[in-house]
Amino acid sequence: MAKGLPKRSENYSEWYNEIVKRADLAENSAVRGCMVIKPYGFAIWEKMQRALDDMFKATGHVNAYFPLFVPKSFLEKEEEHAEGFAKECAVVTHYRLKANPDGKGLVVDPNAKLEEELVIRPTSETVIWNTYRNWIQSWRDLPLLINQWCNVVRWEMRTRLFLRTAEFLWQEGHTAHSTREEAVEETERMLGVYATFAEEWMAMPVVKGTKTPNERFAGAEDTLCIEALMQDGKALQAGTSHFLGQNFARSFDVKFVNKENEQEYAWATSWGVSTRLMGALIMAHSDDQGLVLPPKLAPIQVVIIPIYKTPEDLAAISEKVNPIFEALKAAGVLVKYDDADNQRSGWKFAEYELKGVPIRLGLGMRDLENGTIEVARRDTLSKESVAIENVVDHVKSLLDKIQANVYQKALNFREENTHIIDTWDDFKSQIEKGGFLMAHWDGTAETEEKIKEETKATIRCIPLVGIAEAGKCVYSGRDSARRVVFARAY
Amino acid sequence: MAKGLPKRSENYSEWYNEIVKRADLAENSAVRGCMVIKPYGFAIWEKMQRALDDMFKATGHVNAYFPLFVPKSFLEKEEEHAEGFAKECAVVTHYRLKANPDGKGLVVDPNAKLEEELVIRPTSETVIWNTYRNWIQSWRDLPLLINQWCNVVRWEMRTRLFLRTAEFLWQEGHTAHSTREEAVEETERMLGVYATFAEEWMAMPVVKGTKTPNERFAGAEDTLCIEALMQDGKALQAGTSHFLGQNFARSFDVKFVNKENEQEYAWATSWGVSTRLMGALIMAHSDDQGLVLPPKLAPIQVVIIPIYKTPEDLAAISEKVNPIFEALKAAGVLVKYDDADNQRSGWKFAEYELKGVPIRLGLGMRDLENGTIEVARRDTLSKESVAIENVVDHVKSLLDKIQANVYQKALNFREENTHIIDTWDDFKSQIEKGGFLMAHWDGTAETEEKIKEETKATIRCIPLVGIAEAGKCVYSGRDSARRVVFARAY
Repeated sequence: MAKGLPKRSENYSEWYNEIVKRADLAENSAVRGCMVIKPYGFAIWEKMQRALDDMFKATGHVNAYFPLFVPKSFLEKEEEHAEGFAKECAVVTHYRLKANPDGKGLVVDPNAKLEEELVIRPTSETVIWNTYRNWIQSWRDLPLLINQWCNVVRWEMRTRLFLRTAEFLWQEGHTAHSTREEAVEETERMLGVYATFAEEWMAMPVVKGTKTPNERFAGAEDTLCIEALMQDGKALQAGTSHFLGQNFARSFDVKFVNKENEQEYAWATSWGVSTRLMGALIMAHSDDQGLVLPPKLAPIQVVIIPIYKTPEDLAAISEKVNPIFEALKAAGVLVKYDDADNQRSGWKFAEYELKGVPIRLGLGMRDLENGTIEVARRDTLSKESVAIENVVDHVKSLLDKIQANVYQKALNFREENTHIIDTWDDFKSQIEKGGFLMAHWDGTAETEEKIKEETKATIRCIPLVGIAEAGKCVYSGRDSARRVVFARAY
Repeated sequence: MAKGLPKRSENYSEWYNEIVKRADLAENSAVRGCMVIKPYGFAIWEKMQRALDDMFKATGHVNAYFPLFVPKSFLEKEEEHAEGFAKECAVVTHYRLKANPDGKGLVVDPNAKLEEELVIRPTSETVIWNTYRNWIQSWRDLPLLINQWCNVVRWEMRTRLFLRTAEFLWQEGHTAHSTREEAVEETERMLGVYATFAEEWMAMPVVKGTKTPNERFAGAEDTLCIEALMQDGKALQAGTSHFLGQNFARSFDVKFVNKENEQEYAWATSWGVSTRLMGALIMAHSDDQGLVLPPKLAPIQVVIIPIYKTPEDLAAISEKVNPIFEALKAAGVLVKYDDADNQRSGWKFAEYELKGVPIRLGLGMRDLENGTIEVARRDTLSKESVAIENVVDHVKSLLDKIQANVYQKALNFREENTHIIDTWDDFKSQIEKGGFLMAHWDGTAETEEKIKEETKATIRCIPLVGIAEAGKCVYSGRDSARRVVFARAY
């Protein structure tokens, strides 16, 4: 391996970029702001997709697919929504290229101008609610519980791999309901699914909360979110679930006959998580040696590396490894035996460490004599020698331990970096050090804006399970009913 | 159910459209040529994806994701490729909308014009080979065996749901190899995977063959394909696998150091199947009652319908149904118990018939007395009475039988509609009746074109396993080494 990674403590941003690059997760493409997700990175995303998709289906949702293109007139229909997305839209204006009449190459064919411009979907509420109009007539057609996995485009000016890219992959759930209550319940249910996924699969603790009106999704009546804390003390919004009220039903005229035989607009929710979760996963757990993956999302959970000098040694080691390899595979463990002869074992150790493989098994000639195998944990970087006959059981239980430990470590970090703040001076000094600042806020957009201007901190959320004590706003001194979470954020 | 479907024999095209619509598979969207794939249709596509993805992984491939946007200059690099796709490209020219200064709504912001236009990928060879340049240095980096699942856009003028849409979903494999032989082998291997999938999962027999130069993929040295015969006697190209030679490596300067320590251009393949397969699946098997699905791709394999008058009857039936339902589920059968009380059983029978559910179990009060259950097959529309205690085993083996029968029926149809043609008169009269015409061809593009002009028949492929007898071209009378497959095609 080449020289080590930048240290988190010295250059967090470069450390992140280098991990993404050197662990083969993603890279920038030739098109500004668009990324190539490399096979190793994509394998992690596939595991996330599968787990989430199973959870969506277990809660009664089905998948479908809606078009990439949004007619400009659709975007105009919901005013706030239009305002929120118009500034970052990729716009298709023509449908043909032709040979350049003045020379070589291709030019846009001016005769192939679209009558109405098409926007690449930044999100699909408009297209989907335009479709739902024909699908919903009666309360019997409801609820509609539909999700799609797709790409979306938001023309961001400052992009960063996974965290903010012009094109990204995501899922977007769009549901329609016959009552407000049911839609609110769905909004909360899906936030719960996201929180469970973040904590149980990504091993990443999250705070569930409500966004302030300022930070709401464009067109929503209420936006719920999960917020995670990264190792540099900045917050990352990891998923959102919106209660859209009847806004989109009204804009797209989606009415149904309710049980009382009256026409009523349908109630909506939408909810999404994206490849941004990859950025969260990397930043939540990784260290100065590279990526740290929770076992449940690791494409390779265990790597076995032979340590040898001669081909005879390798043959002897492989003979011992094969039954272990097969037993692990049979137990459902994602295991790789790396006996490639063009790299030394030291190089391989560093490489799999960099790639975050949770467990490394090393087997050399002395181990063979002793009937042992070296078991190295990626999360703690600790090693131990285990009797070969016990290694399969040991590995299976160790994977669970690592999953739990990675979560616990992130939880400890968050707890150590969550601060009860009661004065404006403390607020200003603590925000420079990062973390979640639990402070009172007077509930006005004005104060929220001023705090943001002065400190770059935003209200990440009003926690669902909050400290329901009355107090005084940390900025204005006015009354406040509860603390909210402030942080600088990605 | 409303009135019946159009009959295949009377209006095949309308019959197809109505099945797609009434079986809830897909519908046209507000954007010309773009479809909405509805949940039931998408569930079938998901099963196809899962099966194919497993086969790709079993043959050593990994998934990744490349950008949606292709810079215009990339498309220009491979001349034939550019010519092939330029005419049907959706072109992004701007990245922002703004409030209309002259009134309401949004307009394209003229200040947000892109320096270089971006094309929505019609296929990704250019983007991917531009990326591979940085991934490939030595023979040790090869082969690269990468696939992606994504959406693509080809601005078609005449579109039909699934068969030809402006946006469609597909997978595209893009591999790089160090030798011509290995790339050719890969091209053939993936054609084999497609043929196996078509026959074993879709229950659709296919002819494997080579395209004539005329019908080749733009930029390929050789295009292999699988061709299926639809019930109206027209052919449908169901998948293609291209040997790209060193064309894209040359255009994008992708060189590697080979084992002899010399610089060499990498060898390429690409291969894809799309949501067009949904169209093939529908047209290969369905009948005048609606969709017929092979059990392996059916989202619901067995539906159980209670036949009752009173709530007490329903309770008694449900009590009998529950253990059957649970036993089928435990055996991995996708089973649904439809006890909804807002539709009569007759309506349900027709509905699941329309949706192609392979097996329907009906249970009424008389069955309860007799200890029997009615088992109806969708493929043959036959019914039999089975003892309740045997029904689970019966259903499991019946699903296999249906899968085999659907295939056999399609194979018989193809055999009955494959004709050895030796004279031009026979050719002209047979082509009006449809089917695969096995005829001699002199190997010239000129003859191929003339036959197409005069009869609308194209050479579907030169079969890999062909009739290797010498003969005279059916059109020109010149020498021919073997017969090729002619047909009118989708």
